Amino acid sequence: MTTTIPFAKGHGTHNDFVLVPDPDGRLPLEAGTVAFLCDRRGGIGGDGLIRITRAAHVDDAPEGLDPQAWFMDYRNADGSVAEMCGNGTRVVAQWLTEAGEMRDSVDLATRAGVKRIVKTDNGFAVDLGPWGLSRADEAQQRGMDSVVQVVGAPDPLPSLSLDLGNPHTVVALPPEFDLQALDLTAAPHVDPHPPHGTNVEIVRAIGTGHIAMRVHERGVGETQSCGTGAAAAALATWWWAGQPQDQLDWRVDVPGGTVGVHIARDRVTLSGPAVIVARGEVSLPAPRG
Amino acid sequence: MTTTIPFAKGHGTHNDFVLVPDPDGRLPLEAGTVAFLCDRRGGIGGDGLIRITRAAHVDDAPEGLDPQAWFMDYRNADGSVAEMCGNGTRVVAQWLTEAGEMRDSVDLATRAGVKRIVKTDNGFAVDLGPWGLSRADEAQQRGMDSVVQVVGAPDPLPSLSLDLGNPHTVVALPPEFDLQALDLTAAPHVDPHPPHGTNVEIVRAIGTGHIAMRVHERGVGETQSCGTGAAAAALATWWWAGQPQDQLDWRVDVPGGTVGVHIARDRVTLSGPAVIVARGEVSLPAPRG
Repeated sequence: MTTTIPFAKGHGTHNDFVLVPDPDGRLPLEAGTVAFLCDRRGGIGGDGLIRITRAAHVDDAPEGLDPQAWFMDYRNADGSVAEMCGNGTRVVAQWLTEAGEMRDSVDLATRAGVKRIVKTDNGFAVDLGPWGLSRADEAQQRGMDSVVQVVGAPDPLPSLSLDLGNPHTVVALPPEFDLQALDLTAAPHVDPHPPHGTNVEIVRAIGTGHIAMRVHERGVGETQSCGTGAAAAALATWWWAGQPQDQLDWRVDVPGGTVGVHIARDRVTLSGPAVIVARGEVSLPAPRG
Repeated sequence: MTTTIPFAKGHGTHNDFVLVPDPDGRLPLEAGTVAFLCDRRGGIGGDGLIRITRAAHVDDAPEGLDPQAWFMDYRNADGSVAEMCGNGTRVVAQWLTEAGEMRDSVDLATRAGVKRIVKTDNGFAVDLGPWGLSRADEAQQRGMDSVVQVVGAPDPLPSLSLDLGNPHTVVALPPEFDLQALDLTAAPHVDPHPPHGTNVEIVRAIGTGHIAMRVHERGVGETQSCGTGAAAAALATWWWAGQPQDQLDWRVDVPGGTVGVHIARDRVTLSGPAVIVARGEVSLPAPRG
């Protein structure tokens, strides 16, 4: 007998997700089921899966949550559990909005704590949390603590390392190079190489408070959008500009669309669009064995 | 205002399709809409799209069709029109079966004519049409008319060229090499190079009437499954074995599953599974203008 469950598919700047609405906690979703649903040819397809449920129905939820709080149960495409996904929070907010469960804001519980999501002109904004320079040394104060070799640019380029919960290395591309012509098939070589690897953002200045970037995500490859990467790119460019206090809002063009970054002292907020593309029912394969 | 249309998603040995049921011919689907629906991150995602309609509702259908015949209106993922897709016919047959429109067989109209599809133990079988050796010279009679250089095998390997409506070059991999270890990122180099390019199938013999293969599709890259490629692989192996008349049925393991090939003199039949994974409604983006 085939089991069918409801699903939706959505994306934020082309970072896409299978959504499984499960307000009553009836769909715990084993890793194999998640991998099936995220399989782009054999299943639905997505960069990850989000079970939209209530905190009461998540076994490994952090303590102290309101059991009735909406919970983003995020899973990687291979079925493993993950803490948070910035682009994913906006897609959940769009789903909650269309379901009549959200007006101007929502406190969305995640494995990384409660995230306040606010409706904005360009979609939704979410606080990504604290940020910092990765190393507190003198080189970093000058805005360059490493060099990155990118295929398509002849010489190693100076770069800045930032920590947004995950590691980032940001490079400013000199104007004589074409951002679109760079080859990001392989991970750019970072020297010194961070012990746990790094995401690499390559940034082109467009105008005041406006940059374009491409990103190579650690362990994944080039992606259409990386929320913390966009924030790191804006923060590095702001740092290089001398941290102007009248330039705290940034527009960041990523391959999959455009996001906004707001710098608020030691914290950073990401805003951007979210779309629910489709809704339906999916047939789960019969369990093996 | 957003327009929503019904869709299904299905695959045959992981060659996957967006299906748009349109029995009344109300959804002509412009190229841009097809490309949106086949976009794996921004839309639903598929190797191609199939509008399931009646022959009466297809402007460029061949003449002489029964206007009420079911028609497979196949589109490539970029929105361009295509004639036929062997794996796609099985997925249409599965959809028709689930819709109560097919019992044991169906005559499915396509831009390449009417294809009889028959229910089988492993799914559905479809007549792929006539096949032949590409060149009628003496070298080909010996079973090798070209050589192919594959990354992962040191020397050029002898190969046979076949025509199944599209061009194929089949290579038998010697037992000392690992089929899975070959690098098919780039197109294998074929000498002499066919004027219009070629699909390349690399075949490993498994047992009597049983082979495994990987395929590099012309203009696409390595794929999970290629129906005419599986037929070409079985035909070449059968040719090399001396065309035994008691060995006309072949099992072909492709990366995305297993298909059957039946050789009937100058024609060849492909059989295999088909799955409808999901059904739902998709929101089309507002027209630009």
